Amino acid sequence: MAPAGAVLYRNLRTFQVWGANTEVGKTVISTVLCNAARAKLKDRVQYIKPVSTGNIEDADSSHIRKFGIDRLAKHLDNTDEAFKSLCLHQYELPISPDRAAAVSNLHIPNDEALLSEIRQVLSERAELGGWAFIETAGGVHSPGPSGTSQADLYRPLRVPAVLIADSKLGGISQTIAAYESLKIRGYDVESVLLFEDDYYQNDHQLKTYFKQHGTPCKTLPKLHAPQSSKEADEELMLRYYEKHSQSPIIEEVLSHMKQRHDDRVKNLESMPSRAHNKIWYPFTQSTLLSPEKITAIDSASGDYFQTLEKKQGAESLIKSSFDGSGSWWTQGLGHGNPQLMLAAAYAAGRYGHVMFAEAVHEPALKLAETLLDYLSNPRLSRVFYSDNGSTGIEVAVKMALRAARIRYGWGPNDNLGVLGLSGSYHGDTMGAMDCSEPSTYNEKIEWYEGKGFWFSYPTVSCVDGRWTVAVPPALQDQFGSDKPFRSLADIMDLESREASREYEQYRVFITQTLKQLRVEGRRFGALIIEPIVLGAGGMIFVDPLFQRALVSVVRSSPELFADDAHFPNSANAWTGLPVIFDEVFTGLYRLGRSSAASLLQVHPDISVHAKLLTGGLLPLCATAASEDIFKAFESDDKSDALLHGHSYTAHAVGCSVAIESLEEMRTLDTTGAWDEFKSRWAGPAQESEQEAEPVWSVWSKDFVEWTSNRERVEGVWALGSVLSITLKDLQGAGGYKSTAAKDVQAALFKGDSADWNIHSRILGNVIYFMAGQTTSTATVQRVQDVLRKVLV
Amino acid sequence: MAPAGAVLYRNLRTFQVWGANTEVGKTVISTVLCNAARAKLKDRVQYIKPVSTGNIEDADSSHIRKFGIDRLAKHLDNTDEAFKSLCLHQYELPISPDRAAAVSNLHIPNDEALLSEIRQVLSERAELGGWAFIETAGGVHSPGPSGTSQADLYRPLRVPAVLIADSKLGGISQTIAAYESLKIRGYDVESVLLFEDDYYQNDHQLKTYFKQHGTPCKTLPKLHAPQSSKEADEELMLRYYEKHSQSPIIEEVLSHMKQRHDDRVKNLESMPSRAHNKIWYPFTQSTLLSPEKITAIDSASGDYFQTLEKKQGAESLIKSSFDGSGSWWTQGLGHGNPQLMLAAAYAAGRYGHVMFAEAVHEPALKLAETLLDYLSNPRLSRVFYSDNGSTGIEVAVKMALRAARIRYGWGPNDNLGVLGLSGSYHGDTMGAMDCSEPSTYNEKIEWYEGKGFWFSYPTVSCVDGRWTVAVPPALQDQFGSDKPFRSLADIMDLESREASREYEQYRVFITQTLKQLRVEGRRFGALIIEPIVLGAGGMIFVDPLFQRALVSVVRSSPELFADDAHFPNSANAWTGLPVIFDEVFTGLYRLGRSSAASLLQVHPDISVHAKLLTGGLLPLCATAASEDIFKAFESDDKSDALLHGHSYTAHAVGCSVAIESLEEMRTLDTTGAWDEFKSRWAGPAQESEQEAEPVWSVWSKDFVEWTSNRERVEGVWALGSVLSITLKDLQGAGGYKSTAAKDVQAALFKGDSADWNIHSRILGNVIYFMAGQTTSTATVQRVQDVLRKVLV
Repeated sequence: MAPAGAVLYRNLRTFQVWGANTEVGKTVISTVLCNAARAKLKDRVQYIKPVSTGNIEDADSSHIRKFGIDRLAKHLDNTDEAFKSLCLHQYELPISPDRAAAVSNLHIPNDEALLSEIRQVLSERAELGGWAFIETAGGVHSPGPSGTSQADLYRPLRVPAVLIADSKLGGISQTIAAYESLKIRGYDVESVLLFEDDYYQNDHQLKTYFKQHGTPCKTLPKLHAPQSSKEADEELMLRYYEKHSQSPIIEEVLSHMKQRHDDRVKNLESMPSRAHNKIWYPFTQSTLLSPEKITAIDSASGDYFQTLEKKQGAESLIKSSFDGSGSWWTQGLGHGNPQLMLAAAYAAGRYGHVMFAEAVHEPALKLAETLLDYLSNPRLSRVFYSDNGSTGIEVAVKMALRAARIRYGWGPNDNLGVLGLSGSYHGDTMGAMDCSEPSTYNEKIEWYEGKGFWFSYPTVSCVDGRWTVAVPPALQDQFGSDKPFRSLADIMDLESREASREYEQYRVFITQTLKQLRVEGRRFGALIIEPIVLGAGGMIFVDPLFQRALVSVVRSSPELFADDAHFPNSANAWTGLPVIFDEVFTGLYRLGRSSAASLLQVHPDISVHAKLLTGGLLPLCATAASEDIFKAFESDDKSDALLHGHSYTAHAVGCSVAIESLEEMRTLDTTGAWDEFKSRWAGPAQESEQEAEPVWSVWSKDFVEWTSNRERVEGVWALGSVLSITLKDLQGAGGYKSTAAKDVQAALFKGDSADWNIHSRILGNVIYFMAGQTTSTATVQRVQDVLRKVLV
Repeated sequence: MAPAGAVLYRNLRTFQVWGANTEVGKTVISTVLCNAARAKLKDRVQYIKPVSTGNIEDADSSHIRKFGIDRLAKHLDNTDEAFKSLCLHQYELPISPDRAAAVSNLHIPNDEALLSEIRQVLSERAELGGWAFIETAGGVHSPGPSGTSQADLYRPLRVPAVLIADSKLGGISQTIAAYESLKIRGYDVESVLLFEDDYYQNDHQLKTYFKQHGTPCKTLPKLHAPQSSKEADEELMLRYYEKHSQSPIIEEVLSHMKQRHDDRVKNLESMPSRAHNKIWYPFTQSTLLSPEKITAIDSASGDYFQTLEKKQGAESLIKSSFDGSGSWWTQGLGHGNPQLMLAAAYAAGRYGHVMFAEAVHEPALKLAETLLDYLSNPRLSRVFYSDNGSTGIEVAVKMALRAARIRYGWGPNDNLGVLGLSGSYHGDTMGAMDCSEPSTYNEKIEWYEGKGFWFSYPTVSCVDGRWTVAVPPALQDQFGSDKPFRSLADIMDLESREASREYEQYRVFITQTLKQLRVEGRRFGALIIEPIVLGAGGMIFVDPLFQRALVSVVRSSPELFADDAHFPNSANAWTGLPVIFDEVFTGLYRLGRSSAASLLQVHPDISVHAKLLTGGLLPLCATAASEDIFKAFESDDKSDALLHGHSYTAHAVGCSVAIESLEEMRTLDTTGAWDEFKSRWAGPAQESEQEAEPVWSVWSKDFVEWTSNRERVEGVWALGSVLSITLKDLQGAGGYKSTAAKDVQAALFKGDSADWNIHSRILGNVIYFMAGQTTSTATVQRVQDVLRKVLV
């Protein structure tokens, strides 16, 4: 089944009718709207009641049939298709849909299935055009058949809303609260309608309120009082419809709704060319861009964008696009996640943003405590906030260099570099750029000046069905040739591998290199690495044993860095050089563990976290450091402090969302949400080990191994939610400039289904995919199935 | 009147009772809670109904009196103060409070007055301790007497909420929607209560829902059906209370509420010391910090923080603190602004965050279009997004240097510097730091390396009652001595001043300096200035004529920068050097105009905007640039692109909030919201000019001039929402390290009222204050009154 994404058809003006309360007149007003669309505008109309409870004869769809086309036929062009009324699921008991469904013997559709049914009806009507009205049941949060609140249930469709306000006592409050519940889920409320009531006059206040919110609010005349006989009632009802279906007010309402629909289409369709004129895109060569290449995103939910399809006629204008890059590696808990949204809104309502220097608020403090607990690193005791990974790295580097300089008594003008890994990348601000060796990303930047030394290293991938530690040619004299392993788990079994010859080779090589650098007079203030995987450098899976050896040598050999080298007393103090882990990409369950450091079983002195920190909603970064590093900035002089701090440092909204994200991810971890994925990766080798945390991925082991055997594939690996495929670069350009992955990317974007495709990003000849932490097995399967077709 | 801030008393457990709907039993359940607190816990109880409509005998406060202490006295310790019931405003007609108040002949309290009355009652009860229950009227959004929704009206008090859920048909939806409306305003909902109902059983679903949200939801037995006589009704009611006021469920509810109250106090009180242990503060020397110096912020609303007061006994634990630094210069539309909150939540619900490279979403596009329109600068045509002012400056510098290098044919390794102003500061990332001359902020940073030349210049302030352009001693040979002016408006009248001798002096000085730099072989790629005011450098108001002269010379003299200097054809292309305006602090109405550039009447080629961009809620930065600059990055080579882009580039939440902010500020501007402030600054000089936009401030001219005459004051200026006072530095340390302003800051923080104080930040011997764009004249007056006392 295709993902149930948003619906938008050029000629089918689709609206969803919501009630501010139960019994506010949704069905009567829906009928008026349907009739007016037929009678005044001579348009075709489709009414849909997805779920109805109670006697079928009293059901809303029957009401519409009775007072719609059948009775008013004399005014209308009565063809089969002109006016259809449909109820998808009818349960007999007049109670809430979930309870009525539960006690019935009937099929209970799950949320995705129900949405697909609605999409199917709309898709069939799209050719005919006109209007479609989808009437909800009860209030905005009344449960659907599965028990999910309707406001959440229908959200993926993101059909524009008509809100029927409550004209009775208390109705102002009910209406505004219902409006807010829709609005905060990203619904567009296009029209508010209610019955007149001379006594309560709710419309006065509501008209003012909705005018401020840019939505017209209109009244319909009050309904008659209930009559003694059903016939009398129906007679009056009929007269009501005859009279008001032709009213200029309703015509105005429909005209506004039509305008809004047309505006939405026009706006979406014009966005790429407007963006092409006004936006300066990040990491984009504008000469290679054209409006046709710009993806217009209408909205997003779960793992999917809802993107514009350039279509004429009756085809859907919106397609679901799997967010294959995790929106630049940020996504974890799904787009439009209502819990993250509520956390953000709560903090915005409680604080806005408040000053952080010498002040404290609960979200910043609680996040610091939660994060330190998460990292389970006895060295880390302090959290410094900034706004993104790049600024967080600048903070980390400022911390480390100062600590090293103070410890070793170097002067402020001694040039300090960093030690790192070839192919590393730590961000786009100048200080972060300077932490990496020259590359396509930085070498043309006027102020870039790489400050450091970067090691080459063996890498990990699955090649021709075999997990391999590949040794680059230049290192083969030192380390020998590529080494095959039985499994990824074996490669990650660092305890066993530390006893191997290769570990000693790594140590010797690193030590000799550092000695040589010392001889050359080079001076270093930090070791900075992306643990396990170098992201922007091309999704390079570094042999973890090499990273472990590097940290081990640096920590155990202070004499390689300074004359007055010494080991401090404290167990948690840094030795050799401060070790910075850039976990911006790799941390917080991206690789399946709460920290990437735990995969290496190394405790860094400074650890930088962003991206997944907020579950994929907002920029925020936390740089955690040891007390030892912190104390290097202590002095009687105010200006010895770490003089860094952005205006929105520790902004309450970001911190609140981050707390919610960390808690949700921890819950997923501890409640076994990933057990199905994990079980596919657990091999006999694993089970023999005591309590070993499995090495696992949401991408299946079989699929990874199958991919590694494709002719065009050079190597592949998967870990946590990341899948990385290196394609053979037949043009030989290599690296970031290669276009080898472009064909695959284009084929995935084209897709083979009218309903969805895959949006992905490439890094030269590497194409990668990133699931969220809440992505279902079905979605992963769906993506893998397409990949199997494209890579075959 | 003191600001009506949050209430929290150690021994008075105060809760506000809200209804998910009207007629859900708020009063009955409030009575049960009051009775149980008396009967089971033997505590004192205060019931408050701030506003009641309908017959006084039927009023909720009468109900409580009848079924509370009076009738149940036999169980209770019936003293005068043990159980009080109070209605503050009673209007006779049983309709919504705003309408009932409007038709009455009674006093209608405004929102602030009503809150003050409630605070007064609570403050008087604080000594006695026990419980206070404040019962709202109708639903959460039912209007108060002024017409403001209660959810907004009572928000400044931020009393923890008890939500009475709706047990009737549709009640699940009503309850969740009401809960969300409270939650998104920053209320803590501590308990949900409802009547049992065997038929609808709303409690089943609601208990599950609220469990997920961490709030206990409990039921009370159903009420009896209405009886034929009032006496029979009352008899049954009495029995209900007798029975259920002692129920273990209610005891459990109260016990939970007590725990939550105690936890809140404990949490707040422990925050400073926990923060002192775990937080690494920005720009803070930790040896000078102690828990006592850390301000614990409970919440914030409008212009005020709600901060912890370290008090024992019955005194209020929370004080309103005027956010004098505008939370590091970010605030514009008030803390907890519901419109910004809704904009944030809507975008979070609609998108989360979505990929921006080669994609477009409505908020990013609309913000780009809105901002470009705002800036009214024909040169600017492109917007590049990043996360904060510092990253936005790095982007601007990358843009400018590349454009200059391409135009002049310089190689990538030619060292380019920037031209700037002495005392400038552009941010904390390394590239932004390198744009400023060495200073306290950067000179100890290991990788800092100032790249450029920075001019000295005359400055503006009001000294001894006279507006003055002060010339620093080193420049007096060139420019003569300090020059007095009749008014600030005269100083800002650049058209007239361009005809003066001083303008020519400025131009000559600048030209000669640049010639000399050329002779020295220096090479520059950009002119970067903070227009009008240098913020972090110490709120330095630069003579705008000097800044104009600087831009003018740079633009008209390309031969000062390169041999192959030429003027491009396009009118909007840069000449000389690309001119960058860092408007991060000074732009977007901070200085009273939509852009600071408009005060200088200069059109920069690149303009950087952050802080107020989101009205003070979230980090976001936009760097706007000219098409000419944009085209410098065009090539067939992908790697010639501007290789910069943070993961959350153009995040939808930030962009949506920014659009809302820009629109709100524009509305304030165009609807004359600042006319009262402006009128105080309009002098006869102004009126003689045609259509001249006034130079104005929220801080009154009289007050500024009065301040300038204080003995301890060296100079003062006000512009837009900023007031800056330079104090005489009697110790002579000067600059950032000075402590001259510390006394004033401490006196303001101590305050002279139990209800509020002023939180401010200082820059050396400069103390400054920043109002928001929505700060009222009354608030400004209140702050000025205190300043007059402290500065006297």
